[in-house]
Amino acid sequence: MVSIDYQGQTIEKQALRYQGKAKQVFQTNDPDILWVHYMDQATALNGKVKEMITGKGELNSAISHLLFDYLTQNGIENHYLTAVSKTDELVTTLDILPIEVVTRNYASGHFVSKFDVTPMQQLTPTVQEFYYKSDALDDPFINDSQILALGYANAVELAQLRQKSQDVNQLLRARFEKIGIHLVDFKLEFGRTRAGKVILADELSPDNMRLVDMRTGASLDKDVFRQHSGDVTIGYQDVLTRLQQED
Amino acid sequence: MVSIDYQGQTIEKQALRYQGKAKQVFQTNDPDILWVHYMDQATALNGKVKEMITGKGELNSAISHLLFDYLTQNGIENHYLTAVSKTDELVTTLDILPIEVVTRNYASGHFVSKFDVTPMQQLTPTVQEFYYKSDALDDPFINDSQILALGYANAVELAQLRQKSQDVNQLLRARFEKIGIHLVDFKLEFGRTRAGKVILADELSPDNMRLVDMRTGASLDKDVFRQHSGDVTIGYQDVLTRLQQED
Ligand SMILES: Nc1ncnc2c1ncn2[C@@H]1O[C@H](COP(=O)(O)OP(=O)(O)O)[C@@H](O)[C@H]1O
Ligand SMILES: Nc1ncnc2c1ncn2[C@@H]1O[C@H](COP(=O)(O)OP(=O)(O)O)[C@@H](O)[C@H]1O
Ligand SMILES: [Mg+2]
Ligand SMILES: [Mg+2]
Repeated sequence: MVSIDYQGQTIEKQALRYQGKAKQVFQTNDPDILWVHYMDQATALNGKVKEMITGKGELNSAISHLLFDYLTQNGIENHYLTAVSKTDELVTTLDILPIEVVTRNYASGHFVSKFDVTPMQQLTPTVQEFYYKSDALDDPFINDSQILALGYANAVELAQLRQKSQDVNQLLRARFEKIGIHLVDFKLEFGRTRAGKVILADELSPDNMRLVDMRTGASLDKDVFRQHSGDVTIGYQDVLTRLQQED
Repeated sequence: MVSIDYQGQTIEKQALRYQGKAKQVFQTNDPDILWVHYMDQATALNGKVKEMITGKGELNSAISHLLFDYLTQNGIENHYLTAVSKTDELVTTLDILPIEVVTRNYASGHFVSKFDVTPMQQLTPTVQEFYYKSDALDDPFINDSQILALGYANAVELAQLRQKSQDVNQLLRARFEKIGIHLVDFKLEFGRTRAGKVILADELSPDNMRLVDMRTGASLDKDVFRQHSGDVTIGYQDVLTRLQQED
């Protein structure tokens, strides 16, 4: 049995509750706490391409913890409680909203091909997109009125997702700028606490962000994997090292 | 030379300015007036499928004029000036906004497959979608922040598109309900007058609407063409006849 002491309480890792594309989520003896394991698995095209990348879980876990701590210090409530090991963490159990929020500061990826715009064109105002979180439907792009009509979230929640994503963007952008990195775009997930509050969830790693070196223009994120252009862990390690130096 | 008297002025049909998928748009001797011809051509899949359907131009023209007149009587400013023949009309020259506004009262078409919902499920609130009008890009679905960042329209215009489409929906829905037809969904276009005002443009015909007979559930619109399920003009003629009887 694997367990850890957390705030004077013994937290036991229990049954696997969800096997994701990048993480495993386990129940614990406390219904309000989940045990998350960052895997070495990488996927592209919504899971159609899959590969093991040694060290990715550790790097994502470390970057994520560092960024969640930074957001917590700056008043952004989130699910992260504590690290358990180099790849594992405890988080607050949430009822995840089925909406992925994408924020774009610069044009990249499928935004470029969809609208035939210049890669890395600055986007003013910042673009925010909602996607309906459904692997079966391939995470379709969705707008407010569709979300409301289909009951995936209510108007208050949508306003919160927008405001919170914007706040997170301001903070992360500034943090990465300090270490010479453009935060191009990123995907966030949110969930409801048992008390009904919407807070930030999931992970904050280069798996879910596009990060570009300001000086060289090099990708330091999962695009390296998507484009088969090298070893992703080099970029991830670079991001972690720079974040740690500035910490 | 083809010409017509309109409000004491002789309007001459001049050079073809735009050859569309369903209409031809000609300049006239008055820069503020265009001459529109409704063709018998039908297209599907954004022009990839094309066919001639004798009588469709006349029917669309008649339905469109009747509905534009109805909207005018109910305070919705639009581009329609007068009919010139059974297939031709004069309209106010507009600078068309590159945004198609789709309103959905019931789930149908690609909305059903995209979100895997029940066909004809009622949508509350009514769904409104924006598409970027670009044949080359296949009219991509677009949201407000994308429109603003790419400069396709400004925030005031977006609010107007939303409000005006909602007003048109209320009016058209009621009009069709009276003749036993569900207004399932429809696409509108808007343009700026020389004075900078945004008004309703294009056409109001079964080419751009889904109309379903309340009693039989039969499609009375272009879906009959899209699905190769019969002669579309039968449904279009039925719509026109019912509208004329209630006029
Ligand atoms: N605090 C939380 N409570 C419950 N579920 C969470 C929480 N944070 C993240 N999740 C969910 O756990 C899963 C994480 O695994 P991941 O491999 O990222 O999944 P996916 O393949 O869906 O991206 C996701 O489905 C995510 O929505
Ligand atoms: N009042 C107007 N002023 C200028 N252009 C207009 C006006 N009303 C409609 N249009 C444009 O004229 C064209 C009508 O032809 P159509 O066959 O419907 O074109 P499409 O193939 O683009 O759908 C469209 O491009 C439409 O945007
Ligand atoms: Mg994930
Ligand atoms: Mg058209």
